[in-house]
Amino acid sequence: MKKRTSVLDLARTAAEASRSLAKASTDAKNGALLAYARKLVKEGGPVLKANRKDLAAASRRRLPEAMKDRLRLTPERLEGVAEGLRQIAALPDPVGEISGMTVRPNGLRVGRMRVPLGVIGIIYESRPNVTCDAAGLCLKSGNAVILRGGSEAVHSNTALVELAAESLREAGLPGQAVQMVQTSDRRAVMNLLKLDRHIDLVIPRGGKGLIRTVVENSTIPVIMHYEGICHTYVDEDADLESAVRICFNAKVQRPGVCNAMEALLVHQLVAPAFLERMLPEFARAGVEIRGCAKTRRIAPWVHRASRSDWGKEFLDLVLAVRVVGSLEEAMDHIARYGSGHTEAIITENYGRGWRFVAEVDSSSVIVNASTRFSDGFQYGLGAEMGISTQKLHARGPMGLEELTCSKWVVFGQGQIRE
Amino acid sequence: MKKRTSVLDLARTAAEASRSLAKASTDAKNGALLAYARKLVKEGGPVLKANRKDLAAASRRRLPEAMKDRLRLTPERLEGVAEGLRQIAALPDPVGEISGMTVRPNGLRVGRMRVPLGVIGIIYESRPNVTCDAAGLCLKSGNAVILRGGSEAVHSNTALVELAAESLREAGLPGQAVQMVQTSDRRAVMNLLKLDRHIDLVIPRGGKGLIRTVVENSTIPVIMHYEGICHTYVDEDADLESAVRICFNAKVQRPGVCNAMEALLVHQLVAPAFLERMLPEFARAGVEIRGCAKTRRIAPWVHRASRSDWGKEFLDLVLAVRVVGSLEEAMDHIARYGSGHTEAIITENYGRGWRFVAEVDSSSVIVNASTRFSDGFQYGLGAEMGISTQKLHARGPMGLEELTCSKWVVFGQGQIRE
Repeated sequence: MKKRTSVLDLARTAAEASRSLAKASTDAKNGALLAYARKLVKEGGPVLKANRKDLAAASRRRLPEAMKDRLRLTPERLEGVAEGLRQIAALPDPVGEISGMTVRPNGLRVGRMRVPLGVIGIIYESRPNVTCDAAGLCLKSGNAVILRGGSEAVHSNTALVELAAESLREAGLPGQAVQMVQTSDRRAVMNLLKLDRHIDLVIPRGGKGLIRTVVENSTIPVIMHYEGICHTYVDEDADLESAVRICFNAKVQRPGVCNAMEALLVHQLVAPAFLERMLPEFARAGVEIRGCAKTRRIAPWVHRASRSDWGKEFLDLVLAVRVVGSLEEAMDHIARYGSGHTEAIITENYGRGWRFVAEVDSSSVIVNASTRFSDGFQYGLGAEMGISTQKLHARGPMGLEELTCSKWVVFGQGQIRE
Repeated sequence: MKKRTSVLDLARTAAEASRSLAKASTDAKNGALLAYARKLVKEGGPVLKANRKDLAAASRRRLPEAMKDRLRLTPERLEGVAEGLRQIAALPDPVGEISGMTVRPNGLRVGRMRVPLGVIGIIYESRPNVTCDAAGLCLKSGNAVILRGGSEAVHSNTALVELAAESLREAGLPGQAVQMVQTSDRRAVMNLLKLDRHIDLVIPRGGKGLIRTVVENSTIPVIMHYEGICHTYVDEDADLESAVRICFNAKVQRPGVCNAMEALLVHQLVAPAFLERMLPEFARAGVEIRGCAKTRRIAPWVHRASRSDWGKEFLDLVLAVRVVGSLEEAMDHIARYGSGHTEAIITENYGRGWRFVAEVDSSSVIVNASTRFSDGFQYGLGAEMGISTQKLHARGPMGLEELTCSKWVVFGQGQIRE
């Protein structure tokens, strides 16, 4: 039962710290963020030393080079992380804003005030810079955070969290607002996921398996960042010139990210003209095409798509291509195989463009532009915690505002209910 | 495995119906709501007959009179339910509204469109009118609904759902947008709670035990309507005349509801003057007072509060009273014993009123008015599904807007990401 107690204690002290942080001034929060950025650059020595320990362990455990590269911190990477923290400091503070104030017939003033959620748990597998980004976003939005990173980065993360806590304390804020689950015991996470009395939100960041485990075991509300199986539909009235540029960008500009296009749907009337121009461009860029039977009638040289290619997140230079008979068929395909992340239509037709926008059920629906635009910076939100593919509370890019909730505030002059 | 299949089929057909309903016109949805209201009044015979069956079964099972009364439907009560549906029809349609549209430097237009959640599951123990209210609110907000009412109302609910489905079909909408879990097998609910692929939200309405069961077993996001342990704090600078009227109203006007006051906190400087006027008024209204030691020094005739009286939802003419030394002590008490529902401060002091509003973490925070105001009608939202005490997605009164989410919509002219 010892582990249980320690995770519970962690959650309790985080909840206490969250009460102080919720009422902290914007100046104090920005002070802590800038101090953190400064320390990462000027006092990064212990972090780099801890990181070398993790890298040595990774070598002993023969982890793949790609993973070691993601794990590696350098002075340049720390400067990048610090720059992210400075940007978060520069964003407006969402906390305390009152909106939608109305006067009721009895004179009551009723509105909503934006407030922090409280304590946010983040469970992640990825690079140590997530530690700093998550800590920074939670701090600015007035939330305490409990971090649980991958065991391969434990020394790096410990050092990064220590600097965050120091920065908080220097700004007169509680250091316990940023804490880390110390044990690598998997049961500690299972226990954490049941602490809904103290933790307000859990965000799992990582592969499908991690997300599924969290959803199935958590009594705390979860915000998911699931797969990005993004589609582009080239309508019969598309400007084909523009369609070629947009689809190329959506697939090739950065194929390993969640808002890259994974499947291309083309109306049969324009399929020959469009695909004969588009597919060679993809081929020249090294994109492997997996086409449906109709696609292969136009371009016999492409691979045959197997059933499992529809709805697959390739995260690579691979693209599934299907010729469809109508907008409805395209939307049915998206409803069946999409992950609700980002879908685009290319069309000059008003009615079909509008139907696509109104009816496709994804976190971002785009007309005549690349799916690659769906992120916080591109939408003008600034730094983000990721892109939510679920519907409740936060959908799409999850910035500072999505790390808060609102409460109703009511100003009266003695009113009683009749 | 048969039950599992049938709940899964139900969820699948509901998900399919939700796609049609999401794009239904406001006219069609209002048509269905008004048809439903008309049928309840004009064709209520089968409903009343089914209700008599439930009442007979309740008598055989010797259910308490209060429960039988809640179960009972009469032509008058059906007219009341119909009036609720007409009011929902009269509310603005939240679906399709686009807000926050901005133009990005590259010319992209980025905004958010309000859309239905999809399929909502409602698990409830209460009166059969909840069936109609929930169906009406879900229909108007464009969501399909799966209803699971208490077994004691199964015949009434079946008849009510049948009328709803008929009304939908008459308006050209899919009848399967309102469905009911037919079996009383508890495992069916357990299976339902795992269908996160088809159901977008679960709302448990009922006692603590039901809510806990749902939270612990659901992989679908849950919105909770937990207890209402509401506090009023009478500050040292309160207008005592007004404080007496407000506190009396908060406790006595309707003690059995969630936003009635359950505990009264009084600053020690005004405690003698205030309690000497307030407590006799409560006594005359039949309110049983359970006071702390300091309260009993002022009014020795009141009951001694036991530890379990703090943080208790009496839902009755019982009130816990505590004298505190400061605003901080009052807020600490609320943080410890409150349920995050509704709290009020009575004060003429600007600074302390503001601190209470900013720092108390409840779904509604009220200055100088009765806690009884926290509901959808009083806030100008219209009909509501209840009052959420959780923080994510919906907090406080949950009206039509809280039954929707938003998606990002982006209008481009060929933009690609550099």
